[in-house]
Order: sequence, then C-alpha cells, then structure tokens
Amino acid sequence: MSMEAKDPEMLIADAAVQESITEEQQQFFLDNGFLVIRNVLRGAELELIQAEMMKLVDQGAAGMAGDPDYSYGTGVKSGGRILKRIEYVIDKSDPMKALLGQPFILRSVEKLQGRNFIPTWDSMVLKMPDEGIIVPWHRDAEVPEGADPAKPIFNVDFYLDDADLRSCLWVIPGSNRWSQEQAALRCKREGFDTSDAIPVPMRAGDVILHDITVVHGSPSGDGNALRRTVYYEFRPGDTEAEFGPHTLEYLSLKQHMLVDCLERRKAAGYAKGETAFEYRPHGAFRLHGVRKPPTYRYAHADYWRQG
Amino acid sequence: MSMEAKDPEMLIADAAVQESITEEQQQFFLDNGFLVIRNVLRGAELELIQAEMMKLVDQGAAGMAGDPDYSYGTGVKSGGRILKRIEYVIDKSDPMKALLGQPFILRSVEKLQGRNFIPTWDSMVLKMPDEGIIVPWHRDAEVPEGADPAKPIFNVDFYLDDADLRSCLWVIPGSNRWSQEQAALRCKREGFDTSDAIPVPMRAGDVILHDITVVHGSPSGDGNALRRTVYYEFRPGDTEAEFGPHTLEYLSLKQHMLVDCLERRKAAGYAKGETAFEYRPHGAFRLHGVRKPPTYRYAHADYWRQG
Repeated sequence: MSMEAKDPEMLIADAAVQESITEEQQQFFLDNGFLVIRNVLRGAELELIQAEMMKLVDQGAAGMAGDPDYSYGTGVKSGGRILKRIEYVIDKSDPMKALLGQPFILRSVEKLQGRNFIPTWDSMVLKMPDEGIIVPWHRDAEVPEGADPAKPIFNVDFYLDDADLRSCLWVIPGSNRWSQEQAALRCKREGFDTSDAIPVPMRAGDVILHDITVVHGSPSGDGNALRRTVYYEFRPGDTEAEFGPHTLEYLSLKQHMLVDCLERRKAAGYAKGETAFEYRPHGAFRLHGVRKPPTYRYAHADYWRQG
Repeated sequence: MSMEAKDPEMLIADAAVQESITEEQQQFFLDNGFLVIRNVLRGAELELIQAEMMKLVDQGAAGMAGDPDYSYGTGVKSGGRILKRIEYVIDKSDPMKALLGQPFILRSVEKLQGRNFIPTWDSMVLKMPDEGIIVPWHRDAEVPEGADPAKPIFNVDFYLDDADLRSCLWVIPGSNRWSQEQAALRCKREGFDTSDAIPVPMRAGDVILHDITVVHGSPSGDGNALRRTVYYEFRPGDTEAEFGPHTLEYLSLKQHMLVDCLERRKAAGYAKGETAFEYRPHGAFRLHGVRKPPTYRYAHADYWRQG
C-alpha cells in the first residue's frame, strides 16, 4: 500500500465470511499499523452490547464523578463537563466478558502475537453528540526497547456506533514503523492536519486493530453523533514478562480471567454455531487448572512494577 | 578456607546470637557452597516440629504406598522397603508453614538472593535407624546457563535429629565453583570416597545452607540413628522467571503462600520476641494485596514449562 491518503488498496477483513485475518491482512497490519475488520459484532450480540454500554453512558452522563473509572472533559460546544471515557468495562457488564472471548479476534491476536498473548486494558472512549472532544495526533505508547518487533502490541477497537467523517478515526499509515522522534515531531504539528492521514469511517459492529505506535487521532466534533468505541488491548506475554509495565503476578491473573471469559462466551446464546477459541499458552505462560477470577477489575495501578 | 578436609577455619553462624548471616559468612557460603548455622530451631519450636514430623514418619513407615508424596528405597540392612523421602511437608503440617517464615533464614536468603526470592521445594529426607540408604555424591541440579552467579540457588536443610559421622552429610568445599564436567567426573568415582570431602556433623535444630551445585552425599548407614532433614529450597526470582523450571504462574502463587506463612509465624507463641521478616519483593515481582492460598501444595509437575 502506498502512503497516499484514501488509497483504494486498503485491505479490509470481514468476520462474516472469515475465521480470522489472512496472512495478507496480517502483513497489511504489520506494514500500516492498522486493519479494519467488518462485522465482528452482529445481530443479538451487537444489540446487547449497545444496550449494555448505553446504560454505562447514561450513568456516566448523569454523573459518576466520585468513581475513578469515569473520566470527563470539556465539551466543544457547551463547554460543559462531558463524559469521555469509562475504564474496566469488562468488570461492569457480562456481555463484555463474553466479548473478550470473541473467536475471530482471538485467533487474529494469536496470529499477530503468538500463543502467549495477555489481555491488558479494557475501556470505552466516547464522543458525546455534538460535543466530540478532539483526540490530538498521538501514539498510545512506545514499545519497550528490545521487545520483539514481529509481535506488535495493539488495541482492538470495537465500534458500537457508525463513525462518519465528522467523528471517525484518522490514521497515518505506516507511522508504526517511524522512530520515536519522527512520531513526536509529527504529533506536534498545529491543528488537526490530515494531509498525510486517511479517515477510517466505520459501521457499528466493525473493528479496527490499531498498533499502539501508529499515529492516530480524531478531529473536534460539531454535529457529530454519539460514538462509542470499546478498546481491548493485548500484549505478547514475552514482552510483558520482560519489560512490563505490569508485574508478573498480573499476567497469570489476566490469563485466568481470559479463560473464564472464554467459558462465558460458550454459554452465550449468540455464540452458538461459532468455533470457540482455544487459549493455549505455553512455556513460561502455561496455566495450571482453572481459577475462578475473584474480580474482573485488576486495576493497572495495583500492578505496576514501581517500588 | 583451604580445601583440606576438616579444616578448622570453617565458619559457622549461630542463630541464637545473630539476626542473620554476616558478610563474612555470606562470602564463605559463596566460596564453599555451604554454611552451617547452629540453633535455628530451639525449644518449643524444635520439639513441636520433631513431633509433627515424627507423625509423618510413622505414617510413612506404616505404609503410604499409594501416596505419591511418600517415597521408599531398599534398606541397607534389612533389604526391606524403607521410607526415604516425604514431599510437601509444608502442606502436611502447620508448624512447617510457620517455619517457612523463620526470620533468620529469610534474612539470610534475602542477603544471598535479593528481595525477590521464591520458595520452591519443601521435602523431608530420612535415614531410618540402621537402614541409612547411601546418598551417592551428587549435585542437586545445575544452574541454568546465563543465570546470575552472584545469586546462588540453595537449600536450607533443617536437622531435626543429631547427625554424627555415621549419618551426617559430607561436602566437597568449593565444588559449587566447578564446571559441570568436573563435578560429573568426581561424582562417578567408585565407593564413597571422602578424601577431598569434609563431614558436617550436626545437632538437632542446626541448619546447613547448601548450594544446589555443591557436590555432597552421605555414606550408607549401619548402626545409624534416625536422621530427619527438612529441605526448603529458595531460588532468585529473576532466575526462575527467565529460565524456569516453573511457570510464571507458580511464582506469584508461591510468593503469596510465603506471605501467608509469615502471618502464621507471627501468630505462633514460640515466635514471640523475634523480629518478623518482612518480604519486600519489587519490580516485576511486586505483589498486590493478600491472597489466601487455596492450597499449600503446588505440585511441581503441574507447573513445569513443558508443552
């Protein structure tokens, strides 16, 4: 793919007809730092998750100021306090637990990161109607020096609403292969310059895989519709074990949580007929037995390596 | 210390008057691969542990053939089936849980391995009266290539009975610094040749720290008294995390078990007046909160990295 904006060669996967991403799509992701997958959430599951997340949005909008999981910004139109992000959505809703077991996604994660992948963050980011707060150009994070570049760290962005040109994500294809300095320089550019970027309009139920190092953002909204996007991040086990940021204890806790969510997915009516994902961590990451998670909210701050 | 047998310069620690091993004793251990510590178990604790372990010996001697934790050999005198080893003694007795929290020992382990040490094996090895089965010259295991040589892997051997020249351990001082080939050659020598070794007679309550790579053994007994020795092994966390043999999951499970045993020790009457050890793992090994161990028997085979 060339770096031209709106290049028609953009590869797009389709979960309605594929079992996981193809090798070609995998290579597209490695080259460009993102990949669109259509139709990951469909029918009953999409409706259920939309309803579940609407409940959280309504609660958050009504005011959950005392709760650290709800964060707020300043709305572009009203200037008021506007809900912008909710953390730990898996803990807050059972269908989000089953979503962690989504087999197309996990088979694709396994292809990209190997068998020892670890689920890390789970959050929902919001653009409230007419109040879409700008997300300036940024990388989510840098990859630790020395980490295996063949195993990217990335987010799975589940779109619960359509995202048109007024609210959608813009990415700079290939910026995942830039140096840290190059990316920092580009992100400093004034305004929301899209000259070297492409928009990624989405339909509800579609997914973007985005490398944490791809430069991306979205413009300030005005006249935008509600856009709810759920982010599940995954990291290769080896990278986490060697470099963190989480402690080793965190890794097996999240692995057991994943195993539990896979069992929950099997029990979901809407997952009937799909081939369940089988998590097969090996070597240092092998798990013994089944441990019912005492919580689905392993707060990051409790498991940093500081101290 | 020279390599002469029965060298009078052997340094010996004394838990009755020290808080932990001194720097000089630490250096002696690094140079020679072993260190004797007198009076670790005393008074009520020694008596209680002797009684507890006697119960296990009696059960094992009566026959626990179906239980994989009890193993048997052929007695040298009777030729009969003789109890020789019992695994997972911490699981089988509460005073053994409190013993894992012994502060002199843990302060010394921390000095030798750093703050992130992990308790691994816990076993009792027996020489039954008059039936002392020979333990041929051996290293317990080799250290993984690439592991930090400044942080030795070692066993803490708690003697519950006196061990005289008929039953005691013999070590070859400094053989922990030999190559694998040199050690293998020495261990092949016929008979129980003690020309380059020293005997380590012990009193009940004394401890030997022995590096897993020091060449050691004990002769066949005849006329020997009962000798019960409990082995607690410790490994530096970094070495375990990088090389195994256990999975990463095992490490935090055993860390939480250690924390629990420290709490149990504080509650023991005989630990009154001693300064409790504070376990302060850091970096990747930091622990969050307190997790009551669901078991005290994390079977090694369940946590190997194979597969």
